[in-house]
Amino acid sequence: MEWIEDLVKFVREDAPFGDVTTEAVIPDISCVARIQAKQDGIIAGLAEAGALFSHFGATVQQYAPDGNQVHSGQVLMELSGNASAILLVERTALDLIGRMSGIATRTRAFTAVVKCVNPKVAVAATRKTCPGLRMLDKKAVILGGGEPHRLSLSDQFLIKDNHLVLVSMEQAIRAARSRSRYKKIEIEVGSPDDAIRAATLGADIIMLDNMGPGEVQTTLDRLKEHGLRERVIIEVSGGIDEDTISDFARLDVDVISMGTLTHSVRNFDVSLTVLPGEQTIFLS
Amino acid sequence: MEWIEDLVKFVREDAPFGDVTTEAVIPDISCVARIQAKQDGIIAGLAEAGALFSHFGATVQQYAPDGNQVHSGQVLMELSGNASAILLVERTALDLIGRMSGIATRTRAFTAVVKCVNPKVAVAATRKTCPGLRMLDKKAVILGGGEPHRLSLSDQFLIKDNHLVLVSMEQAIRAARSRSRYKKIEIEVGSPDDAIRAATLGADIIMLDNMGPGEVQTTLDRLKEHGLRERVIIEVSGGIDEDTISDFARLDVDVISMGTLTHSVRNFDVSLTVLPGEQTIFLS
Amino acid sequence: MEWIEDLVKFVREDAPFGDVTTEAVIPDISCVARIQAKQDGIIAGLAEAGALFSHFGATVQQYAPDGNQVHSGQVLMELSGNASAILLVERTALDLIGRMSGIATRTRAFTAVVKCVNPKVAVAATRKTCPGLRMLDKKAVILGGGEPHRLSLSDQFLIKDNHLVLVSMEQAIRAARSRSRYKKIEIEVGSPDDAIRAATLGADIIMLDNMGPGEVQTTLDRLKEHGLRERVIIEVSGGIDEDTISDFARLDVDVISMGTLTHSVRNFDVSLTVLPGEQTIFLS
Amino acid sequence: MEWIEDLVKFVREDAPFGDVTTEAVIPDISCVARIQAKQDGIIAGLAEAGALFSHFGATVQQYAPDGNQVHSGQVLMELSGNASAILLVERTALDLIGRMSGIATRTRAFTAVVKCVNPKVAVAATRKTCPGLRMLDKKAVILGGGEPHRLSLSDQFLIKDNHLVLVSMEQAIRAARSRSRYKKIEIEVGSPDDAIRAATLGADIIMLDNMGPGEVQTTLDRLKEHGLRERVIIEVSGGIDEDTISDFARLDVDVISMGTLTHSVRNFDVSLTVLPGEQTIFLS
Amino acid sequence: MEWIEDLVKFVREDAPFGDVTTEAVIPDISCVARIQAKQDGIIAGLAEAGALFSHFGATVQQYAPDGNQVHSGQVLMELSGNASAILLVERTALDLIGRMSGIATRTRAFTAVVKCVNPKVAVAATRKTCPGLRMLDKKAVILGGGEPHRLSLSDQFLIKDNHLVLVSMEQAIRAARSRSRYKKIEIEVGSPDDAIRAATLGADIIMLDNMGPGEVQTTLDRLKEHGLRERVIIEVSGGIDEDTISDFARLDVDVISMGTLTHSVRNFDVSLTVLPGEQTIFLS
Amino acid sequence: MEWIEDLVKFVREDAPFGDVTTEAVIPDISCVARIQAKQDGIIAGLAEAGALFSHFGATVQQYAPDGNQVHSGQVLMELSGNASAILLVERTALDLIGRMSGIATRTRAFTAVVKCVNPKVAVAATRKTCPGLRMLDKKAVILGGGEPHRLSLSDQFLIKDNHLVLVSMEQAIRAARSRSRYKKIEIEVGSPDDAIRAATLGADIIMLDNMGPGEVQTTLDRLKEHGLRERVIIEVSGGIDEDTISDFARLDVDVISMGTLTHSVRNFDVSLTVLPGEQTIFLS
Repeated sequence: MEWIEDLVKFVREDAPFGDVTTEAVIPDISCVARIQAKQDGIIAGLAEAGALFSHFGATVQQYAPDGNQVHSGQVLMELSGNASAILLVERTALDLIGRMSGIATRTRAFTAVVKCVNPKVAVAATRKTCPGLRMLDKKAVILGGGEPHRLSLSDQFLIKDNHLVLVSMEQAIRAARSRSRYKKIEIEVGSPDDAIRAATLGADIIMLDNMGPGEVQTTLDRLKEHGLRERVIIEVSGGIDEDTISDFARLDVDVISMGTLTHSVRNFDVSLTVLPGEQTIFLS
Repeated sequence: MEWIEDLVKFVREDAPFGDVTTEAVIPDISCVARIQAKQDGIIAGLAEAGALFSHFGATVQQYAPDGNQVHSGQVLMELSGNASAILLVERTALDLIGRMSGIATRTRAFTAVVKCVNPKVAVAATRKTCPGLRMLDKKAVILGGGEPHRLSLSDQFLIKDNHLVLVSMEQAIRAARSRSRYKKIEIEVGSPDDAIRAATLGADIIMLDNMGPGEVQTTLDRLKEHGLRERVIIEVSGGIDEDTISDFARLDVDVISMGTLTHSVRNFDVSLTVLPGEQTIFLS
Repeated sequence: MEWIEDLVKFVREDAPFGDVTTEAVIPDISCVARIQAKQDGIIAGLAEAGALFSHFGATVQQYAPDGNQVHSGQVLMELSGNASAILLVERTALDLIGRMSGIATRTRAFTAVVKCVNPKVAVAATRKTCPGLRMLDKKAVILGGGEPHRLSLSDQFLIKDNHLVLVSMEQAIRAARSRSRYKKIEIEVGSPDDAIRAATLGADIIMLDNMGPGEVQTTLDRLKEHGLRERVIIEVSGGIDEDTISDFARLDVDVISMGTLTHSVRNFDVSLTVLPGEQTIFLS
Repeated sequence: MEWIEDLVKFVREDAPFGDVTTEAVIPDISCVARIQAKQDGIIAGLAEAGALFSHFGATVQQYAPDGNQVHSGQVLMELSGNASAILLVERTALDLIGRMSGIATRTRAFTAVVKCVNPKVAVAATRKTCPGLRMLDKKAVILGGGEPHRLSLSDQFLIKDNHLVLVSMEQAIRAARSRSRYKKIEIEVGSPDDAIRAATLGADIIMLDNMGPGEVQTTLDRLKEHGLRERVIIEVSGGIDEDTISDFARLDVDVISMGTLTHSVRNFDVSLTVLPGEQTIFLS
Repeated sequence: MEWIEDLVKFVREDAPFGDVTTEAVIPDISCVARIQAKQDGIIAGLAEAGALFSHFGATVQQYAPDGNQVHSGQVLMELSGNASAILLVERTALDLIGRMSGIATRTRAFTAVVKCVNPKVAVAATRKTCPGLRMLDKKAVILGGGEPHRLSLSDQFLIKDNHLVLVSMEQAIRAARSRSRYKKIEIEVGSPDDAIRAATLGADIIMLDNMGPGEVQTTLDRLKEHGLRERVIIEVSGGIDEDTISDFARLDVDVISMGTLTHSVRNFDVSLTVLPGEQTIFLS
Repeated sequence: MEWIEDLVKFVREDAPFGDVTTEAVIPDISCVARIQAKQDGIIAGLAEAGALFSHFGATVQQYAPDGNQVHSGQVLMELSGNASAILLVERTALDLIGRMSGIATRTRAFTAVVKCVNPKVAVAATRKTCPGLRMLDKKAVILGGGEPHRLSLSDQFLIKDNHLVLVSMEQAIRAARSRSRYKKIEIEVGSPDDAIRAATLGADIIMLDNMGPGEVQTTLDRLKEHGLRERVIIEVSGGIDEDTISDFARLDVDVISMGTLTHSVRNFDVSLTVLPGEQTIFLS
């Protein structure tokens, strides 16, 4: 979902004193405009774009549901209404679609690779999102078929290396469990031994951080030996990319998490075109 | 500059109900932490990160000025203070540094290529920034040596193709000039003829949109023939990337603008590490 | 933790045009004031009160940590600074302490009863908090020794009766699990059969809603028969109060959740007194 | 009245990243739901609940005006619309109705007792409301038949004991009157002598703080002796509850003010039920 | 008092993307600057200006208390700190001082005229302030020696002509009194008869709207005849200016209210000058 | 354009706890009301007033476009809807119309004088607007036929005397140009020599500050001698008023800028009247 107030703030950021060009050069006129994909991919952000155009008074017809595959040239949305409202919102709307579709498209690509190798492995995002866009970045990951992972510092226990400099693993897991039984406890480890220890202590999720495929395999083997594999979710993380993702997907892990899904987004190309011959001057 | 209230909102986005892990597992303790580059590049965002850590009570020592070249492994900032404050801010701070340094590094790379070919050509950003991060994205472009271009819809006249569907170029330029003489008038054109027309009508800046190098050269030649070249700033724009930028830089243009600087950012790799053995339990 | 901006908004709510009495009748003068408990109980909200007084420029000395047992008459905090700042903040600070300590005191009382009967059972809050005070209400529950339960609609799956009007239990649990493996799945049931079904389908937590102790016992017995008891956390909920809590605590449940902890708070009595003879007129 | 922006913030507090359960498990479906009283009492908060459901797109039918007596089981409101919107708002709406009706019901009960004994005495709230809910708490008091008293520090002069530590009563009343003649001047006193003094000095309202019924009677008698009774409004305050209120109502006072109306609220029991068989899948 | 968050928003309004000139042309340098009056008058707004400069890190020395008479050329404030902070805040600070001192100076002038004629008459503002600046406009009136009148629609009953189109005077006064005894009831009347009626019905304040001095005198006489003059405060209002104020002050009224104090402000002239030779380059 | 959220905040400023009079005395009733001019002038702010009344549920009929000449007594807008909504918004709406029309009327008057003398000279506003109302003040200037000048510190380079205390003119212009070629560079000078120097260095706009007409003429002559006049826009500024504006308009300048347009506004007189006999009681 989207909070319309936040989306409106993005428009205001882009026009603190209004759209001076349109206000100066365009009369009070209606027009019709189209948003089209300029590449193939998974579309996302149309709901947000549509909500924004509606908020500023335009009529919106959405032609493709978010999460669908679209092709270059496909018309995604048609708008009609006051030209100045449409032009005011244009860039913000396209930027949202461009970023969210970029994330969804990339997530779908990674998911496809992984599912092909091992259908039970999920591709997950991290908290390395764009500040201010956390909810939309996560939504785009979901639309792309990914696992959103924790949404913020408030919704899950994730005990990281920096915590473990300050307290022992035993203390940390015990303290987390005693604080709440309603949140899963995840712990980041860097060695097979620590993974065994974490599983023994009752962690729900173990993140194997920056391990190579061989070390991950060793860890999985040792967990099985100790009868601990079924008790925990195993997440691998750290510098995994196009080249290495298959190597990890082949292993018996549960989740592959990748900061790159949201911290290094390639914009999805999309454009808005005002249609000639459709405008009407208002009789205000 | 940064508005601290906005930066704090990014932290709140990441912790609507606080950092539940740290609150549950870490005692009221002080610590020392370091931020280090994990790649070479142009650093940016340290001012924003430092302002955030300070806001939450940590003492900040910044070791490199924003805009400097840094190398992998270099210590950028040292923090001391309440462990829970440092861990609360960690991800937001790293995300800001990661995005801004990514933009600055990429801008510097493009600028270097261009300056090498033609020292008088500038590399400019567009308005295709991340919603909510416009000011920081533009600042990162400046730190990378780029031209920020207009900051929003409010600070310059830029008459685009969508405007020209609704009014003629003559009307548009006349209306803009009569609205204000304090803002430059830029116009987007798609043909040499329109460029001549725009220059004749008194546009300050002409954006040659989606023209190939040959067509740009033709346009420049014709502007010179008409004695109009010196009266206008010539910006080339549209799908220019690593492969083609040199071709444009060789021509007698003034600015090459690239959406990719800010809409498709590759995160700069940076990490925060709590130092062992430096913490002190508070006697609160 | 507290977000100081939110606390300041509470002061502004109480003084949209300032504190007209103090501004009219009190000169620019410093004073010393004390906050004292006027009843026994568990104190909470001193951190928030202290942060507010500090924000408005007063010097704060806190004499009891939040979460401690205090007795009637005990001095909790001493303030010195501008009289108008202290009087401006007074009511908001006392209201925060009064509410949070009321919650903490009540939670501690219930927890004590339960622990006495069955030390492994937790007393949990619900989402029936005061709108706008969710985080502080939950913090007070924690300070009172309670389990905060989910903090909002965003941090856990809780499939309630209203969901089950719209989808089947099977669909709901499957859909939740496929959305994310990082959040626990809780399901509300009203009969032993549904509890068995939910456990079989893999729910992490089962809320037995509005069942009497007898029916809860039956459910527990049947879960054990099916070998499902250890796989799930059992929460009992619905109209449990002082009179009935022991009956539930005696059973082999994990959590007793009670809306009354936060939706029907009895204010903790606390006062602020300006000390005579300590004020100094400012030489501004 | 209600400010819809503030009500929406309460929903956002409850769903910083959306309602993850409903988004994961409920399809895009419409439904019909009913809000019902689960106890007898004075209903309040329906206007606020209705405004919220409407804001999120539901159609609202309100069956009882706020301020009316309702009985257990009575249908108060019927909603139809998108299931996810109704479930998103559910808890916030019920919490508002629960708190406001709790206040209105309690206020009506005290008012009834007082009116029975002495019809000209009013029952008043204080500023001991829930931070962030001041306006709604006061509105609930009004709906319950109570006197709202001052709404904030900005709308009346109330010279309290803490002021009188810092300035004399004479100075305070003179300063207040010279600041503005548009606001009433109330003064808190603790003895008959001070009450006489305050009335003589021209206070409009005298709050007899923490006096027993006998001392209040003495004060009233002495005011009459001095011919001052008719010039002032007499408010009694301080620890008055169910047991003692009649004793004060019997005296010739004007107002009995009680913090308990708003600082120790007992939630009014109310529920929302989605009706089976009424939903329709959207053809989006 | 001032809410610093609101003042900061004024600076942000003036610099949505920062102060581009200063950021581009001024190095990281400290300086000393002075604010000086450029006319005689009553100074106001220095507290607000000082709070803003301090907020952005400058050191502030205030040389004249708000409310004092100052003369042209007088140094009012000295600032030292980062040049970019001082230049960022400059215009907002001067605009606040200019408007508030303009109001204070004009209020003092009117008050002086009135006091000279009739020392017991007050000069009052109305609610015709600048939207967004209500609190500061009213503060400036107070500093000028004026009566602030009601601060908003929330703090007093004022029954105006538009209300009396919809309900009778009897109903209105009865309803207001029954709502609350803590707020004064003012009623706007346009004839001596209505004034008598309002006083008889128990209004606390009667506003004689748009009556000439003769009609006001008639009204006062008739109120005295009926023995009602002492029971009410008499305010005259409506188009009173420099030329006519003395005519009203001569009558036995209590308050003369004037929208012109705040809706038609003449700016007080004040300037900020950076001192040469005092700057230091930071060794950042 | 107007941002409706900001306009709503102005209403909230005027009614932090609602409109207590109307809520107490007016039943739930509809009415019809009219806004009328009470003087001749250029109307502005009707769009903002209309947007506000609509936001609170009233139906709005606007009878005159903003920017038009209206005469005293002319009906500008008719409203129908809930009486309490119309009365809540009344003052804020009238204050916006009053200020904006005051600015527009004054700007039109100055513009008329100037155009009569020299049709090519523009009358410009400055940044000396009311804090919080910058955008509306500038819009009113445009509606009055004026030049808005820079909208904030973010949209143009304006190198002022205070900058030139800290850096040389050469450095400043070079730094600004190297920062961005998309913004014009204006420089404030106080002597003919500095004007020549600024023009030679490539400034786009030269502000002749506080020069008399004679000195301005000398500057213009010298610029022409050096062949620089056509390269720059010449703005005269500083203390220009009704008496002196014609003397400057006669010279060959481009712009006359006047702080007085927005810092010393004379309110335009306008009123709202509820029509008798048009109200209907709601059957709620």
